[in-house]
Amino acid sequence: MEALPVSKDIDIKSHKGNYQVYFNEFAIEDLNNNIPDNAHFIVDKNVAKIYKDKINNVLNSKSLLIIEAIEANKSLDKFPAYVEHLVINSLRRGEILIAIGGGIIQDIVCFLAATMLRGIEWSFYPTTLLSQADSCIGSKSSINSGGAKNILGTYTPPCKVHISASFLDTLDQREVLSGIGEMIKVHIIDGPLSFDKISQNYNEILTSKEVMINFIYRSLAIKKIYIEIDEFDQGIRNIFNYGHSFGHAIESATNFFIPHGIAVSIGMDMANFFAMKMDIISKDIFNRMHPTLSENYANYSDYPIPIEAFIKAISKDKKNINSDQVTLILLDKKSKVFKGSYENNLNFKKICEYYFLEVKVLE
Amino acid sequence: MEALPVSKDIDIKSHKGNYQVYFNEFAIEDLNNNIPDNAHFIVDKNVAKIYKDKINNVLNSKSLLIIEAIEANKSLDKFPAYVEHLVINSLRRGEILIAIGGGIIQDIVCFLAATMLRGIEWSFYPTTLLSQADSCIGSKSSINSGGAKNILGTYTPPCKVHISASFLDTLDQREVLSGIGEMIKVHIIDGPLSFDKISQNYNEILTSKEVMINFIYRSLAIKKIYIEIDEFDQGIRNIFNYGHSFGHAIESATNFFIPHGIAVSIGMDMANFFAMKMDIISKDIFNRMHPTLSENYANYSDYPIPIEAFIKAISKDKKNINSDQVTLILLDKKSKVFKGSYENNLNFKKICEYYFLEVKVLE
Repeated sequence: MEALPVSKDIDIKSHKGNYQVYFNEFAIEDLNNNIPDNAHFIVDKNVAKIYKDKINNVLNSKSLLIIEAIEANKSLDKFPAYVEHLVINSLRRGEILIAIGGGIIQDIVCFLAATMLRGIEWSFYPTTLLSQADSCIGSKSSINSGGAKNILGTYTPPCKVHISASFLDTLDQREVLSGIGEMIKVHIIDGPLSFDKISQNYNEILTSKEVMINFIYRSLAIKKIYIEIDEFDQGIRNIFNYGHSFGHAIESATNFFIPHGIAVSIGMDMANFFAMKMDIISKDIFNRMHPTLSENYANYSDYPIPIEAFIKAISKDKKNINSDQVTLILLDKKSKVFKGSYENNLNFKKICEYYFLEVKVLE
Repeated sequence: MEALPVSKDIDIKSHKGNYQVYFNEFAIEDLNNNIPDNAHFIVDKNVAKIYKDKINNVLNSKSLLIIEAIEANKSLDKFPAYVEHLVINSLRRGEILIAIGGGIIQDIVCFLAATMLRGIEWSFYPTTLLSQADSCIGSKSSINSGGAKNILGTYTPPCKVHISASFLDTLDQREVLSGIGEMIKVHIIDGPLSFDKISQNYNEILTSKEVMINFIYRSLAIKKIYIEIDEFDQGIRNIFNYGHSFGHAIESATNFFIPHGIAVSIGMDMANFFAMKMDIISKDIFNRMHPTLSENYANYSDYPIPIEAFIKAISKDKKNINSDQVTLILLDKKSKVFKGSYENNLNFKKICEYYFLEVKVLE
């Protein structure tokens, strides 16, 4: 495959100024050997356990908060305890929060950085593929409160992101495939040739760290274009929800048994199936993408998705304009991603049910 | 006194775009007669009681949250309940929070608007003199957490501020004098001639609504200059802390018995006294301002301020660079406000103690 200039860092423009994504295999060793004086660390519990030797100085630093990366811990009612920890550790303006973990740790630290002392800096060492290839850029945080998921948040980019492929060695397969789901999405958004590229390299990504890093780089480089145009998600950035209306509803209907990026893989396949049934795209487009998408969700293809719970969940999607419609991100005839609004009627339900029972389960 | 163009609204530049301050005696009646479809109201409990007839439509609107304006209610641990209320009332993007109340309601609504759904609009009907003449512009929110006061916040300006003098009729005298304290501060920052103007009109402000509104307008027009230059409080805006290092420590040492703007009035007098004792300003400058400041805190001049608790509190001020110094905003020889750092030593303590025992108590 074509070599990509991965040694080149990515520079991202935001409303807070530019920030950088550095690719460095030894990022975490470098950090551990040079603990900044003004750092307050917030570290994923599992990462702290697995990498206890590699990050020993981080774990012995003067301000350390270890958090288990579960949804309940990014709930607003947990924040007074996080704030208290930072107050006890005398957090001051000019100091920095350093996050080591995946998306949940990112959400927590991003929200703390946005709100403590009216804003302090944070930097990020993403440790999951989802966070390395997707969420680490784009400024967003998402915090739960009560029963409402992701109801709070801000747009607060980190000052620096450090990506090290060394963390990927300890991920289990479902986490890797979940990350690849979002990487496929970004490549589809970039166009059919980009999709073909990730599709053709699908097996190599899973076996070669170099190929993996190249596709992480590519995914961020594509996302960069859109978040720089529409950081606050008021227009074009909407298309990054491709596969997500269906995907979120699948997650909800299965009580989050199916990992996010895999639900999104099913969601993209389903979006294409719906578009095909509605004569928006040809069968060729569906068929072109179906093999790669279904390979990515293969371990969950038999997992039952209850149709009533699914319809209930998709009806509540934040993008919907009213209760009779679903707002969906679909492909058009030229495989270009667009946003449209469709009747949430019996026909819609039948297409979804047919997809679950007859399409998803094939091979 | 010279007439001021109070019919002219004030337009304020912020990082979120411009916002306007409207002066309209009948602002609340206009709102009550035209309840916006997309409004979620958050109203001070006391205001809801006193003005129940005037805001009957607000109080019967489909989304209403009434909050008692006490410090405990702007604590982070109260926010999950506020969020739940707005979720139950189906808050969506494109809708607006409308705050009716003083500084505590402002802080709560500003923080909710900054964080819910990654940012929604809010507008503000300030009902206290402190909020009308000072806090309503400048973007800041301040939220408590655990024992830490104002540890969280954001810079999130409202989209509109509506100032109606009609609310001032029901304020008690201590609230009015507290607001006047901050108004005097802003006029001192503007320069000696501005101070003379508010000083000469001190009694008229208390008796004439027209004069009061003129000085509210003047206070905001002066503050506007500085917040537009330094919205994020990284430089020149610091001088708005004139009287506040002393003032906050007085509030803390007296368990918040003395209202904020009155503690600031004592704080400004004390800052001038300290500057005089340190030969930074002449006795003339102290003497010029002392009569007006002491008139404004006259009801509290005998109230004892324990020196040990005061020194402990001022030593913890966020502006201090280290524990041996206090950062103070003082006047210089030309009555210009500046920031300086001074030894937190026995001499400093003696000057403060002398001020409490011998200066403040003189009529």
